Formats: sequence, structure tokens, C-alpha cells
Amino acid sequence: MRSSAPSPVKYISELSTLGEFGLIRQLDKMIRRADNGSGTVHLGIGDDAAVMSPEKGKDLVATIDNMIEDIHFERSYSDWQSVGWKAVAINLSDLSAMGAQPRWLLVNLVVTMDMTLRDIQSLYRGMIACGKRFGTRIVGGNTARSDKECSITITALGEVNRNQHLQRDHAKINDVIVISGPLGLSAAGLKIMKTKQSKLFPQAAQRHLRPVPRIHEIQTLLSNNIRVNACIDISDGLIADLRHICESSKLGATLDRSLIPVHPQLKKFVQHFSMNPYDLLLYGGEDYELLMTMPDSEFRKAKKHVRNLYKIGTMVKQKGIRIIQDNNQIEIIHQTGFRHF
Amino acid sequence: MRSSAPSPVKYISELSTLGEFGLIRQLDKMIRRADNGSGTVHLGIGDDAAVMSPEKGKDLVATIDNMIEDIHFERSYSDWQSVGWKAVAINLSDLSAMGAQPRWLLVNLVVTMDMTLRDIQSLYRGMIACGKRFGTRIVGGNTARSDKECSITITALGEVNRNQHLQRDHAKINDVIVISGPLGLSAAGLKIMKTKQSKLFPQAAQRHLRPVPRIHEIQTLLSNNIRVNACIDISDGLIADLRHICESSKLGATLDRSLIPVHPQLKKFVQHFSMNPYDLLLYGGEDYELLMTMPDSEFRKAKKHVRNLYKIGTMVKQKGIRIIQDNNQIEIIHQTGFRHF
Repeated sequence: MRSSAPSPVKYISELSTLGEFGLIRQLDKMIRRADNGSGTVHLGIGDDAAVMSPEKGKDLVATIDNMIEDIHFERSYSDWQSVGWKAVAINLSDLSAMGAQPRWLLVNLVVTMDMTLRDIQSLYRGMIACGKRFGTRIVGGNTARSDKECSITITALGEVNRNQHLQRDHAKINDVIVISGPLGLSAAGLKIMKTKQSKLFPQAAQRHLRPVPRIHEIQTLLSNNIRVNACIDISDGLIADLRHICESSKLGATLDRSLIPVHPQLKKFVQHFSMNPYDLLLYGGEDYELLMTMPDSEFRKAKKHVRNLYKIGTMVKQKGIRIIQDNNQIEIIHQTGFRHF
Repeated sequence: MRSSAPSPVKYISELSTLGEFGLIRQLDKMIRRADNGSGTVHLGIGDDAAVMSPEKGKDLVATIDNMIEDIHFERSYSDWQSVGWKAVAINLSDLSAMGAQPRWLLVNLVVTMDMTLRDIQSLYRGMIACGKRFGTRIVGGNTARSDKECSITITALGEVNRNQHLQRDHAKINDVIVISGPLGLSAAGLKIMKTKQSKLFPQAAQRHLRPVPRIHEIQTLLSNNIRVNACIDISDGLIADLRHICESSKLGATLDRSLIPVHPQLKKFVQHFSMNPYDLLLYGGEDYELLMTMPDSEFRKAKKHVRNLYKIGTMVKQKGIRIIQDNNQIEIIHQTGFRHF
């Protein structure tokens, strides 16, 4: 679309010299060079919309998510390539939670006029790299300008065998609760970057800047016919996302604190800051690990195919979330976790 | 996703009391009540992603576009319902330009904390109304908060018979150039709203606030086997969008000024402001009419099915755009039209 009410640009920037169509041509070239997604594309960037052929017998899975400057990232600690990576990763993570194979991406980029062409190219480099790693590519987009903040909104489209998508509301009583990796590192990473100590905890910073969606893990489980009853990605924090599963499945959960894995770098981190690790493990968000429930027998099979799986609790009939403490006492968890507003 | 770096909310607003999940529940209810789209939806709002079944033998058509506060709309002259309508309409217009039937919508809404629940409900009411009118519905979305500006980014997904989508680069020499309605009213509407004279020119204001995507018109042409060689929607202005067709089809165009229709309200408008109507007809954007090229014989058939079609020129071998003036002199057009930045 066109901008109907352009406000005056205060200085002639590089972007303004290049123009919108010049920028689109530059980005189009980058995307074409990188092109190696798995889905069929008849018409990519350059027309009014993209045209793709869905695979026969598959359902289409679609999600939209965004990253806004100074809300979801800050230029002071994040490089543009990481912002691009993460903008794609958080969307692919949503697809992984549905058991879908990512296919196509659409990107709405809002730039501020103080961004350089190089900034935008770095942003796209990050998006392309993350897309490529998981077999998907950018097929369309839109660019606009804001005087206030940069933002990237991405729609990820994926495919799943008909009627075989995963839902958060299908957990069953006695299902074990499984996570695909240690939690809390991303929240730790954010804290250290804000206090400029990234070098002390590089893995934590990396986890926050470039989360890895668990596409391969869920695809491996599904292609080996492991029955996953419920699945969600951990973006808001373990407790908050487990609560989504519990509430939509109309069940409760009991977690075993001693079973929750603690990443070695998180151990060092909490020592350094004299913190309680459980605040980060239970409430730290943006790890983008998967939270799944499945019968215990399936979990034992699953472990043979995916190494990084941790059983941390059980789904129960009684509503609410409880946690078995190290001293075997049971604590009821009332706290939720992060609220966006 | 979660917001990783929440900045302090200055006062306890209605939205903050309601919370993100409270807001999503409210909107979900509204959307479910309105639900009457034409596509198959297995799983709508409330999980990590939406799941739909594409129709057999159809291609998927996808587009993304956005409306940003103070760039694409202003609260001073636009009501929230119109903003919602237009955010959907501009996306459906892109689908119409591909010959696609709209099916599903994904909405990324960024709110500011001074917006009320009522504002957001009005915004959704507008989106739902536009979606409903064209047989499509909201199947997923995301909400976030910004301290700076409200924005709505929408992905529209549609379907088209395999390999039958329209492109802008398929115009042929001697094709006639056809538009689906008079142009320039939207730009006029923007001007009168900014000068607070909307009541004098209600149709112009309406055209700017609630454009009507030409879904029905293109579907009627295609279902009656009218051959449309190239198609684009006029968002940037007649000349700018015709230039897209010319450049991608590697052809030129000759327009006949006397054939370009002038809406009665536009005539009054240019008299009122002592303006030249051709500035608005050629360069005013956001009318969201279709610009098509087709053989003249097809145009004659097309007119039997869709009344509002106007032949305004011819595609020619010689590059560039020329316009035959009222005195039969030919003017070469160098100007382009709107640039987003």
C-alpha cells in the first residue's frame, strides 16, 4: 500500500535516496540468491502477492508475530542480524509447536529513516539465515516507514499431514510433561546484555539473541510416530505456558523440581548474581523450547530419537499447578509469569 | 511471543487491567460470533498457529500489508472501525489483483496503552465487517504493545485455480488498458478530512476511509472466462502502478485523457479547490481499483458482466507512458507518483 500521510523527513537519508523500490530491488536480489526452501513457489517477491502450491493431503498452518524496537529488542545490545534471525525464529517456533514443517515467510518491515541500507541488509541476512536453516524462504513482504520505531512482523506458513497437527488442549491425565531443553538462559541473557556483561555468559546472550526453534526435534518425533498429546512453545515462561496447556486441556500439573534441568551456564549466572535459579527456570521466557505432554511409554521411545528431552512432571486431574520441592513438600504455584501488558 | 523489555506503563489503563489474555478472549468471542468465511478452518485463534485445509487443485496466494498510526491513518480524522476496515481491504485488494478468492486473515495488532477496549473492539468490528463482506475471516493473530504508535499488520491468504493467478508482467502489445472505476476520489477524501470539510464531499471521505477491494469484479470476470493478461491494484496512483505493469511486461502504454472517467464528486471537488483534476486522476493513490490489460475483444465481453469497466488506453511496444491530451497532442509522462520513503 502507499503511505497516505507522509510526515516530513528531516534530512536526506540513504534510504530516501535509494527509495522504496530501490530498497525492494536490493532485498529481492539477496533473497533470490539465498533461495533454497522446500515448498513450491510460483511467484515470489515483486507482484501484489506470492503464489505457492500447498502439498496434496497437507493442512496449512499459519502464524503471525512481531518484534518492535525498544519493546522486544534494543539497538544498544542487539545487532541487526540477530534481530532478523529472532524475528523468523519466534514464528518458526510457533509452527514447531503445531508439529508443522515451515515452508514460506512473509515479512512486513517498518524502517526508521536513520537506518542504513547496511542495517536493513543485515536484518535480512539474519532472516534468510534462520529461514534457510529450517528449509523455508521469504516469498513476499511489504516495507513502510515510521518516524518512531523499527518493527518486523512475520507470517510463517507451514504444512502438516491432514488432521495431524498438535494442539495445546489435548493433554491427557497421567501424561508426562516433557521439555526439549534447559530453560531460563534467555532471561539470563537479557539481564547480562542490559548490564553489559555479555562476555561473561556468551551462551546466555546467544540464547536470547538467536533462539533456535525446535523444528528438527518435533519433526523427528512425529516422523518416528511418537504420540505427542499436547504441545506449546515456551515463550512466556514454563509456568505461564504450562498453564495454557492445563487450562485448555481442563487438567492440572505436578512438576518435580529435582527433575528440572539447570544449564551449567545458568548455574554460574545465578551464583554471580546471587539469584534463585527457579525464578528463571519457572518464569523466564523466550527460551523457545517445546513443552509437550505424552504417555510415559512414548517418552521412553522419544528419548531414543531426540537426546535433549527432559521429563519434569505429570498431568493430573486436579486443576492448578503444583511443584514438588527438594524436601518433598508440595507447593501450589499461583504466580503466572510474563504479561505483555 | 513475549515482550522481553517492557518499559514502565505510566498509569494503570483499562488495557492493563484487562491484560493481554483478557483482551484476546474478548476479541476471540467477537470473531467467533461473526464467523462465516468460505475456507475450511480446523483450528482458529487460541493456539500457537491456525490450521486450515486448502482446497484441492488450488494455489495459495499470500500477502502482507500494514497501517501505521500517523503514517497511514490519523486518529483525528479516522474512526477505529474505518481503520480496521481499511487494514483488511488493502490486503484483499492485493489478492484481487492476483485473481484470488480471499479465505483467511491473520492480524498483528500493536496497541498503545491509551487505547480503550472500546477502540480495539471497534477496530475489530471494522476488520470483521470487511472480511465478512468478502467471505473471509480472522483465524489467528498476535497482540503487542508499543509506547509510540498503534499499527495493524494483516496477512491475507487466498486461493486461485492452479496456475491461473494473474500477474503484472503478462501484458501484451495492443492490450487495452482497463480500470474498474473512477480514480482520484481517495486522495481528494484525504485532503478534505485534513481540512475538516468531510461533510462537503462525503463520497470522497468514504472512499479514503473504507475502500472497497474489487474481489467480486475480478471473480466475475474470471468465472466467465474473460482473459485478463495483466492485473495490479491501484494503490500508488494510476501512473505509478501502470509503470509497474509496463516495466515488468517490458512494454509501454498510451493513455487517452478523454477516456479517463471523472467521478461527479471529483468534478465538484476540483472546482471547489481550483485544482487540476488530472493531478488526482493520474497520481492520487489508494483508490484500490483494478488496473488490467486484456485484448479489446475480451474487454467487450467483460463489459457484459461487469458494468464499471473503463477502457483508458493501449499497451504499445515503445517503452514509457504517453498520454493523448484533449487537443490530440501527445505528452510523455516522466513523473512517477507516490514514494513511501
